[in-house]
Amino acid sequence: MIPKDHPRYRSLIARERLARCAREGVVTLEGLAAHGRGEAFDYLIGERTTPSAAVAARTAAAMLLSARHAVISVNGNTAALAADDIAALQRVSGADVEVNLFHRTEDRVERITRLLESHGVRVLRGTAERLIPLSHDRALCLPGGIGDADLLLVPLEDGDRCAALRRMGKTVITIDLNPLSRTARTANLTIVDELTRALPGITAGCSSLEPGEAERLIGSLDNAYLLRAAIDEIRENLSHALE
Amino acid sequence: MIPKDHPRYRSLIARERLARCAREGVVTLEGLAAHGRGEAFDYLIGERTTPSAAVAARTAAAMLLSARHAVISVNGNTAALAADDIAALQRVSGADVEVNLFHRTEDRVERITRLLESHGVRVLRGTAERLIPLSHDRALCLPGGIGDADLLLVPLEDGDRCAALRRMGKTVITIDLNPLSRTARTANLTIVDELTRALPGITAGCSSLEPGEAERLIGSLDNAYLLRAAIDEIRENLSHALE
Repeated sequence: MIPKDHPRYRSLIARERLARCAREGVVTLEGLAAHGRGEAFDYLIGERTTPSAAVAARTAAAMLLSARHAVISVNGNTAALAADDIAALQRVSGADVEVNLFHRTEDRVERITRLLESHGVRVLRGTAERLIPLSHDRALCLPGGIGDADLLLVPLEDGDRCAALRRMGKTVITIDLNPLSRTARTANLTIVDELTRALPGITAGCSSLEPGEAERLIGSLDNAYLLRAAIDEIRENLSHALE
Repeated sequence: MIPKDHPRYRSLIARERLARCAREGVVTLEGLAAHGRGEAFDYLIGERTTPSAAVAARTAAAMLLSARHAVISVNGNTAALAADDIAALQRVSGADVEVNLFHRTEDRVERITRLLESHGVRVLRGTAERLIPLSHDRALCLPGGIGDADLLLVPLEDGDRCAALRRMGKTVITIDLNPLSRTARTANLTIVDELTRALPGITAGCSSLEPGEAERLIGSLDNAYLLRAAIDEIRENLSHALE
């Protein structure tokens, strides 16, 4: 229905997929609004991977491969938009994948798990416990998954939860199009890029790191610099916007 | 549930109200994502009415009062967020109100009409005809409403439709938080502000215009300047963002 040569093809396809997944109970209504906020910021960064985001994705690859126990925390929007990309990243990185939801019901966890598995993702299963220092079911995670991990990749995370995961002593990598968000500023590493561009970038990094490159990237990580670079991109794009 | 002193109280209340209206069929899933895009831009302009947006709202008041036949075109998001504000603006401006939807079904038109009427809005009713130069049901409007109007206030409009209304020779005022959108750039006058701040601003303008002020405001209308001012606000806010 949407022509492939439409200038905003990827964005329109993503929107359709999310609306379908909302009807199926995978994505929440809050998730749709959150996606809209992301679209606005993607528009402002030019709907492309900026040079600083490319460095961030490569640094994320280095961190994933260097971790003792890396876990990718997947929510409804991430599963809806990027199940294939998560499968590919899991294959090259060996990371565990855990479904972890802000608006958690066992039914949604099960739906999302099945969606991911149908795309070839191996998903951790087990009995969740209240291990994240937050109220309500936002605290639930698997003791052998997020509970044990030293490094988490949490795309599209909420600011409260990102801070709580940091308080647990975890290293947190996030993918967030809003460089001003609390998540972006709280994570150890923020990739300011759209999910389905960022994940393949990390996967490519995992397959192509050169000897010594991981140590160099991790040693020079400066998240404040990366966020500032993203903001400068937006400001620059805005200055040409009405030309 | 949301404490009144929460710094983002209005934004959170609006989000809750939209999600509820989506469950009731007033707001579409696409409408939720569109609201999210608006939230992102509102965040960037500082969640307040900027000086240039205040001038734009006052100019809108002058244009509404000077029109031969002004119609306020209301969609699902506008009805969900601002039925009371539409009623108040209709009282002071005498404008007609027509429900006009991008994702049009007679059921949604009826639900939105009833919602507006329950808040005291007088809503035009009748048989819609394909008068807007667009394909599909996006073309439908009332011959004695939008079809006859010389001036339209269309909050939260789509770019295609805004352009089609201009091609019909209508003067179009829009309320759009994204100063870069096609709608914002196509309208005769764009108020870059959040809906429930902008509408009371127009209403206040209608009640307080001084002799000669309407002519002066309309004579000095420069929409490109207003959009540039909004972009400059965002750039300025971004430059202080990480301090």
